[in-house]
Amino acid sequence: MAVNQITASALVEQLGGQLRGDDVTITSITSLQQAQAHDISFLSNPRLRSEAIASRAGILIVTEKSAEALAGRSLIVTDDPYLYFARVARLFHPRPQSKAAIHPSAVIAPTAQIAASCEIGAHAVIGEHCVIGENTRILAGTVIEENCTVGNDCIIHANVTIYHGCQLGNRVELHSGCVIGADGFGFAWDKQKNEWFKIVQTGCVVLGDDVEVGANTTIDRGAIENTIVEKGAKIDNQVMIGHNGKIGAHVAIVACTGIAGSTEVGDYTVIGGAAMIGGHLNIPPKTTIGAATAVSHSIKESGYYASIFPLQKHNDWVKNAAHIRHLHVMSQKIKALEHQLAELNGNSSNQQD
Amino acid sequence: MAVNQITASALVEQLGGQLRGDDVTITSITSLQQAQAHDISFLSNPRLRSEAIASRAGILIVTEKSAEALAGRSLIVTDDPYLYFARVARLFHPRPQSKAAIHPSAVIAPTAQIAASCEIGAHAVIGEHCVIGENTRILAGTVIEENCTVGNDCIIHANVTIYHGCQLGNRVELHSGCVIGADGFGFAWDKQKNEWFKIVQTGCVVLGDDVEVGANTTIDRGAIENTIVEKGAKIDNQVMIGHNGKIGAHVAIVACTGIAGSTEVGDYTVIGGAAMIGGHLNIPPKTTIGAATAVSHSIKESGYYASIFPLQKHNDWVKNAAHIRHLHVMSQKIKALEHQLAELNGNSSNQQD
Amino acid sequence: MAVNQITASALVEQLGGQLRGDDVTITSITSLQQAQAHDISFLSNPRLRSEAIASRAGILIVTEKSAEALAGRSLIVTDDPYLYFARVARLFHPRPQSKAAIHPSAVIAPTAQIAASCEIGAHAVIGEHCVIGENTRILAGTVIEENCTVGNDCIIHANVTIYHGCQLGNRVELHSGCVIGADGFGFAWDKQKNEWFKIVQTGCVVLGDDVEVGANTTIDRGAIENTIVEKGAKIDNQVMIGHNGKIGAHVAIVACTGIAGSTEVGDYTVIGGAAMIGGHLNIPPKTTIGAATAVSHSIKESGYYASIFPLQKHNDWVKNAAHIRHLHVMSQKIKALEHQLAELNGNSSNQQD
Repeated sequence: MAVNQITASALVEQLGGQLRGDDVTITSITSLQQAQAHDISFLSNPRLRSEAIASRAGILIVTEKSAEALAGRSLIVTDDPYLYFARVARLFHPRPQSKAAIHPSAVIAPTAQIAASCEIGAHAVIGEHCVIGENTRILAGTVIEENCTVGNDCIIHANVTIYHGCQLGNRVELHSGCVIGADGFGFAWDKQKNEWFKIVQTGCVVLGDDVEVGANTTIDRGAIENTIVEKGAKIDNQVMIGHNGKIGAHVAIVACTGIAGSTEVGDYTVIGGAAMIGGHLNIPPKTTIGAATAVSHSIKESGYYASIFPLQKHNDWVKNAAHIRHLHVMSQKIKALEHQLAELNGNSSNQQD
Repeated sequence: MAVNQITASALVEQLGGQLRGDDVTITSITSLQQAQAHDISFLSNPRLRSEAIASRAGILIVTEKSAEALAGRSLIVTDDPYLYFARVARLFHPRPQSKAAIHPSAVIAPTAQIAASCEIGAHAVIGEHCVIGENTRILAGTVIEENCTVGNDCIIHANVTIYHGCQLGNRVELHSGCVIGADGFGFAWDKQKNEWFKIVQTGCVVLGDDVEVGANTTIDRGAIENTIVEKGAKIDNQVMIGHNGKIGAHVAIVACTGIAGSTEVGDYTVIGGAAMIGGHLNIPPKTTIGAATAVSHSIKESGYYASIFPLQKHNDWVKNAAHIRHLHVMSQKIKALEHQLAELNGNSSNQQD
Repeated sequence: MAVNQITASALVEQLGGQLRGDDVTITSITSLQQAQAHDISFLSNPRLRSEAIASRAGILIVTEKSAEALAGRSLIVTDDPYLYFARVARLFHPRPQSKAAIHPSAVIAPTAQIAASCEIGAHAVIGEHCVIGENTRILAGTVIEENCTVGNDCIIHANVTIYHGCQLGNRVELHSGCVIGADGFGFAWDKQKNEWFKIVQTGCVVLGDDVEVGANTTIDRGAIENTIVEKGAKIDNQVMIGHNGKIGAHVAIVACTGIAGSTEVGDYTVIGGAAMIGGHLNIPPKTTIGAATAVSHSIKESGYYASIFPLQKHNDWVKNAAHIRHLHVMSQKIKALEHQLAELNGNSSNQQD
């Protein structure tokens, strides 16, 4: 049930933190700039402190460190204002509940088991032998092929496609246009016929509890074994995960990233947007890969890795980038210079002796 | 109503430009190579002048500058042959008109307001409280969730998804598979539980008049405030625009580009294909970002920017790219050489004194 | 008809190769690690030889070269174990057959010609004047607009969109979410009105026999002439092929690659994942483009090309990447050093004379 209004004191009772200053009634969450007398906002990034001071928010969620500068105002003091704010936002905007109804235009195979608490949207299609858990919502136009399992409290948004045999845990959220379980890209070259011969992709995709997958992301089925995304992993839009990938628990992958087949990404790793990670690689747990970074070898040691080619004005880029093709020659010239200079220094010092 | 044939003189009357040579009847538009006696084609790029001379087109759209080389032929002379050609093409191929009919298989919520002049395709789904303007076409399989507004004369192609609460202006065109208003990628890290906590995305997406969005492009809803694409912006396929982005008027974004959250792109800026633009950045108006360019800092001054790492034969690449990891050392070696040489020159000159 | 079990001797009779060791009954194909007594697996990469030795597979497909190390075991010896394995896998997992039935919820235009052997899934939509060949399967939620031709034995997976007028050969497979024939990205700038004017895209998309297109890939229709993918080409997920592209026969394009408009890719070329290829370029046949490589000029000579910017620890990257912006200066400094040193050497030798 969504909260429409709540007092700061009731909030603190429910979510923790310290109330400072007057108690206020909160009717909405919003940004520092837009907040008014009955809004709650937060200050997480210290660089925004002046914006927090200027904000008309009725109450602010802040750290102890920031509280001093805002003394006299209504504050909730907590270790992690961003997380606290996220919890308040969830109170005001809980996940929509299942309507516990199947739209008459949905096409449900006779052998599919749909919990009575499920919501199945207009024109959704559920294949034979699928099992759909309690309170799960499958929105309009989504197609789930035969033999899939979807856990409890999932949201499968509109126009998603799940190929046959895939398994989703509980509280999984799949955004529109994402495709789970399409064939991995596997072909053997037939030298006699001069053409590709398809490798049948007989594995499936397994998504753990609390996995979220963004719009138009694709996660391919395994060639023989399964492609696996462990619990709590969060995947943004337009990400591509190749066949037989293993994405660890609580990994975050930002949009437009591609991860080629059979690569393992360790738990808690964070991959920036538009990163490109080759196949059959290993990324250790708790690694950070910067945005727009290309990873072509396994990484042995956790850490923060990057490979963005720096931006320049086009004319400067033309002048500088050309030299990259000759870096080896440049390096050899420096060696030659060092050598000559060493000789010369030898000569010079001889002369000085 | 589509034009089936038109004389060059009638065309000039309607669209301007000067007719030179004989009047001809035009029945079709096509390329220089394929054109025949009743076709119209155009010469915009001076490098194609010899192809224009060789073309059998009944009539050519050219600049004054190119007209001389084609003297004696039927020509329409204009400042901008490409734009002129686009206008002629539009006469022969106008946007298909709305059928002013709702397909019986479409599912329209009772509270949705659909103009009588609208076309709603097979299996389309329109949610509660949506308002769809005059002559708008919503093609098969498209899902528009509750509380959306779609203006007049829009085309929403097949299998598009628009999440709840989004607002589209007039003459907006959305291509198939695009997803407007999926959740932005926002999570707070919960240190206690060692897991991500979702930030509810309560903003929407607002698309101005005449915006076009390509196939499988995703534009996420804002976290609190809206994600905005201003009027006249043209976005190609498989582009990703993160939450709270502000894309200026008449911006063009070529395919496969990603723009992370909260980034502002100024009016009239052009972004090449596969560019990757970080979050919370500012790109000034009338800037050009080259294809495959990574932007990780705000750009202060308009101009043409690039960052493509140059292609080489693989063996050369192996030799040269390795040195990039040691550029700092290389730079220090040069400094040392300069220093030593300066000293030596001092010594040498001393010796010469 | 799927094979449930087969003896190794029957397999060799059907597919060739030499049986060594005992004949065994095979009930399943799987990986070296998972294989048990009635499974067949394969050894293609010599680096996995120890895993093959450790495998409990009842029978292994190997080269003559690897056979020695596995003497005494049941083996099928062949030139190309990977291709052989692919053929065995196909026996156990043939393409699912058409159900030869139209789902009652599908919407088929009266003028569409659907072969009686076709399968049309739930909520699929087929437009006027479409022609769908024998044994072709069009799965749930797919929309095929008017005037399209689809050959025999095709699989169009769920939630695909094909715009009007496109032509598909035989045995074409399109994965979910792919969009064939959306408008190419073409606009003329209108200097007077300060806005873009759309170039009508009047060409179509033509896909040859045996083409496979991955999930959420987009292939745009041509501006005037067609966009063409020749027979046997295999295209992975989230690939973008711009208008008027010509993709040669048996080309393989790995995921997340973008190919801008009017570019021609020669037969048998292989393009690695996340490559970005500019417009109006020519890539010769039998070329290999490495993953994450940006191609901004035509390639004159076949070969293996790359341009990945090498990954480093972020701190090292910060130190090194900055120098790229000054490579031209660095190069000039080296020249100056060489010049000075040459002079000095002249001086020195003078002094030594």
